Amino acid sequence: MFGTTSTRRTLRVDWRASVSLVGTVIKYLSVALLAPMLVALYYGEDVGVFGISILVTIFVGFALERLDTDPDLGAREAFLMVSLTWLSVTVVGAIPYVLAGWGTASTLADPVNALFESMSGFTTTGATVMGEISFERHSHALLLWRQLTQWLGGMGIVVLAVAILPELSVGGAQLMDAEAPGPGIEKLTPRIAETARALWLAYIGLTVLEFLLLFGLNQLGYAPNMGLYNAVAHPLTTMPTGGFSPEARSIEAFSAAVQWVVIPFMVAAGTNFALIWRAINGEPLVFFEDSEFRFYTGVMAALTAVIAGLLFAGLGPGFAELPTNVPAIDGSVERSLRHAAFQVTSIVTTTGYASMDFNTWSDAAKYVLLFGMFVGGSAGSTGGAIKVVRCLVIVKSLRRELFTTIHPEAVSPVRLGGRTIDERAIRGIYAFTLLYLVIFFVSVGVVFVDAARVGYDLTALEAMSAVAATLGNVGPGFGVVGPMNGYTDFPWTSRAYMILLMWAGRLEILPVFVLLTRAYWRS
Amino acid sequence: MFGTTSTRRTLRVDWRASVSLVGTVIKYLSVALLAPMLVALYYGEDVGVFGISILVTIFVGFALERLDTDPDLGAREAFLMVSLTWLSVTVVGAIPYVLAGWGTASTLADPVNALFESMSGFTTTGATVMGEISFERHSHALLLWRQLTQWLGGMGIVVLAVAILPELSVGGAQLMDAEAPGPGIEKLTPRIAETARALWLAYIGLTVLEFLLLFGLNQLGYAPNMGLYNAVAHPLTTMPTGGFSPEARSIEAFSAAVQWVVIPFMVAAGTNFALIWRAINGEPLVFFEDSEFRFYTGVMAALTAVIAGLLFAGLGPGFAELPTNVPAIDGSVERSLRHAAFQVTSIVTTTGYASMDFNTWSDAAKYVLLFGMFVGGSAGSTGGAIKVVRCLVIVKSLRRELFTTIHPEAVSPVRLGGRTIDERAIRGIYAFTLLYLVIFFVSVGVVFVDAARVGYDLTALEAMSAVAATLGNVGPGFGVVGPMNGYTDFPWTSRAYMILLMWAGRLEILPVFVLLTRAYWRS
Ligand SMILES: [K+]
Ligand SMILES: [K+]
Repeated sequence: MFGTTSTRRTLRVDWRASVSLVGTVIKYLSVALLAPMLVALYYGEDVGVFGISILVTIFVGFALERLDTDPDLGAREAFLMVSLTWLSVTVVGAIPYVLAGWGTASTLADPVNALFESMSGFTTTGATVMGEISFERHSHALLLWRQLTQWLGGMGIVVLAVAILPELSVGGAQLMDAEAPGPGIEKLTPRIAETARALWLAYIGLTVLEFLLLFGLNQLGYAPNMGLYNAVAHPLTTMPTGGFSPEARSIEAFSAAVQWVVIPFMVAAGTNFALIWRAINGEPLVFFEDSEFRFYTGVMAALTAVIAGLLFAGLGPGFAELPTNVPAIDGSVERSLRHAAFQVTSIVTTTGYASMDFNTWSDAAKYVLLFGMFVGGSAGSTGGAIKVVRCLVIVKSLRRELFTTIHPEAVSPVRLGGRTIDERAIRGIYAFTLLYLVIFFVSVGVVFVDAARVGYDLTALEAMSAVAATLGNVGPGFGVVGPMNGYTDFPWTSRAYMILLMWAGRLEILPVFVLLTRAYWRS
Repeated sequence: MFGTTSTRRTLRVDWRASVSLVGTVIKYLSVALLAPMLVALYYGEDVGVFGISILVTIFVGFALERLDTDPDLGAREAFLMVSLTWLSVTVVGAIPYVLAGWGTASTLADPVNALFESMSGFTTTGATVMGEISFERHSHALLLWRQLTQWLGGMGIVVLAVAILPELSVGGAQLMDAEAPGPGIEKLTPRIAETARALWLAYIGLTVLEFLLLFGLNQLGYAPNMGLYNAVAHPLTTMPTGGFSPEARSIEAFSAAVQWVVIPFMVAAGTNFALIWRAINGEPLVFFEDSEFRFYTGVMAALTAVIAGLLFAGLGPGFAELPTNVPAIDGSVERSLRHAAFQVTSIVTTTGYASMDFNTWSDAAKYVLLFGMFVGGSAGSTGGAIKVVRCLVIVKSLRRELFTTIHPEAVSPVRLGGRTIDERAIRGIYAFTLLYLVIFFVSVGVVFVDAARVGYDLTALEAMSAVAATLGNVGPGFGVVGPMNGYTDFPWTSRAYMILLMWAGRLEILPVFVLLTRAYWRS
């Protein structure tokens, strides 16, 4: 798949090759659109929306594919292909939203919103501008399409994370194939394809398992409103750490049993899929041996303890407003633990589900969640943000820096899981993380000034959470962008800007940012 | 001053040598205490407070000095000496506060507050827990001592920045002697002493010049309340980027003319003193040639433009509440520009003066200031926070990272002012900056949870600004820690924690943090 000749890398980019492969991806998207069309048929909803979308998708896909009949990708073409894939799929995937919103009072009548919702889907962000989410306002078919975009986006992320980004050494991403099955990913198409297939199997298997458990709870009477539609829709957005729900109040709408079941699936979605694959194939102890997994679960356990403590002690002012779908008293251990564990897992894995409106919590608890928005999922998972493995390498290398400050002459390599990490990879991870934080700080300023421009009043926590949640593909933030609200009220310029943030964040920033440099297009 | 033998570095720390030199510093502090004692005599205030302080200081200083009659410092001893110096001077310098507060209703009766105020002084932070600042509540002598601690702290910082930290290569601090006078700082005591003397001359000269201008304005009738006391007190806290003022409402208390005069002195205080020294000695163009200075002024100009725009357009809700000491209409160009320039300069240089209560501004404008709190002053200045030169190197090396992502085989050194920066120094700068940000994020959590513990309600902006302002030695933040308020309302545990933040932040973190590692004391 990747040409390894270094001469190629000094040539200008062969954009036809990139666009042609994007065409292939779009072509397959038409197949995915059949699912909501069938659902529309079943519910007697508007089939035309999806019929037209399928025709346009097939036409665009084939047209682009014809640009290069034998596409060959160098690193440069891979960057372009990756960036263009998510952009093009977003545009094509927005067609059903635009057609459904056409001429109605729906927020989707605004093409910026349709693109926002589509990008939010394919990047598995889960930030919404759909306004009121209900079957009265939107068809079953359209809401299923929304769920499906996340599930498809998640499949793309798995390939990106284990096959493409490590190859491109983006921000230390070469570490991310560390635990790949077999003897490591070779630079050969069959090997990459085989790995991707293995991980997709784990992805599909977990999706099916979650469906079975959720629908089983329903059949056993523990989840009255988790009918067939919901039991299909939610696994589609859990495994990609997506977070869309056809329920306006997210997972708050369901019983405590459902909430407890969803938690381990969010944990799994943020875990390196290669680990899961190995565990399934007879190495269950692999989780305990993996330092990233231990750090990942350790961070979540620590943040859960802090928030559960705040909730139990009643220090979150909104504790009295806990949903009453499960009878419990204030200060209940089960409720404190459940909501803390659910919310921390949801935020750290960048899923973005809510088991209650955490907007009612104190700023202290919200801040702990904001902190979690930066950690992100594991390498080789569908989680976003900075990623656990980078955080771990940073912690280790900062400790090394303290050591070498005292022993300047000492050679002290940073080790991860028994392997020494290359200094170049560490530099890449430092640079990635700082770039991420710089983009965060500057973007908050951009959103603030843009809001001030139109007289839209924002608090610092709202603006910061909106940026962290879109750049990190988390989804919901606090205040106006809280889990039961959406991004509709931002000026269109900010919404457009956040489309770019979701796009860049999902692709680990560099594939998008290199396209902005002169060196990429010239020399 | 520094033993260069590497064998020494593998030995345990010779703490007696470090403590002995700390004793010498404390001994000289007793001389400085003579100034407020004379002021107390002049105003007929309590002379005993300073008399006792002087006796204790002399006794402690001589006692510690006797621990080692011929102290020899290796790198390890230098770290200990630097950290202990600021800590010991803080304890000794707190004695006048404790004695003055003894048995009164003053907040200084609490020893944590006395230590906080003293650390805030010697670290040139300017965060206060003094409660109401007025000559009714505090003596002229005590308020002068408060000003003087900052001026002395600034002298310490100059030596630290140009002679000690570069020698220890703390977080890329070796870059900071780049523009030193003459052929560069050699590892020889006479050379270091000579450099320090030159920079102290510039420091003292600028202090005197500011005094002459401020007192001149007063004599000419442009600054009625800038009498002799105030005209002495303010230069003492401008040049160290300190920010303490004997006026409760900081520089808002003075005329627009005074505010305009103070701005360039804050800019100078945040400039590399070696540049100023060279400019004085016949190379005025050195400012335009220095890339750090251009970046430093560029950042301030850009942030000023944004805030001036917000203020002029009236988008800062508090614009109507501008102080009325200068007659002007809303939307006045002069007032928008003056307050924007003053506040941005004050925050970016980490001075911390206020020309108005910027608490009344919108969250958008406050956020821009919060952003500025991280940039900090230039290398070789008295400014704190991350420091401009590190920001510049990060911007340059992130650009390099984008380039090498496309050209992985390219060798692409990062250059600053015509010199190539060593990769080890870049790694140090990355590590320092990430460590700084990690400490920031974690500390905000600590302050939040501690506040929740006692039921003290904080907003995210308040908590973040309090941490950024103490860790970065800026001084005031927003809300409860706004420029006209103070840190008194925090629980004592948070105030104690912030004492540590000011201490670590002022010493560029690593000298304090290495003391916490086992490798420092053992091996
Ligand atoms: K998400
Ligand atoms: K200050």
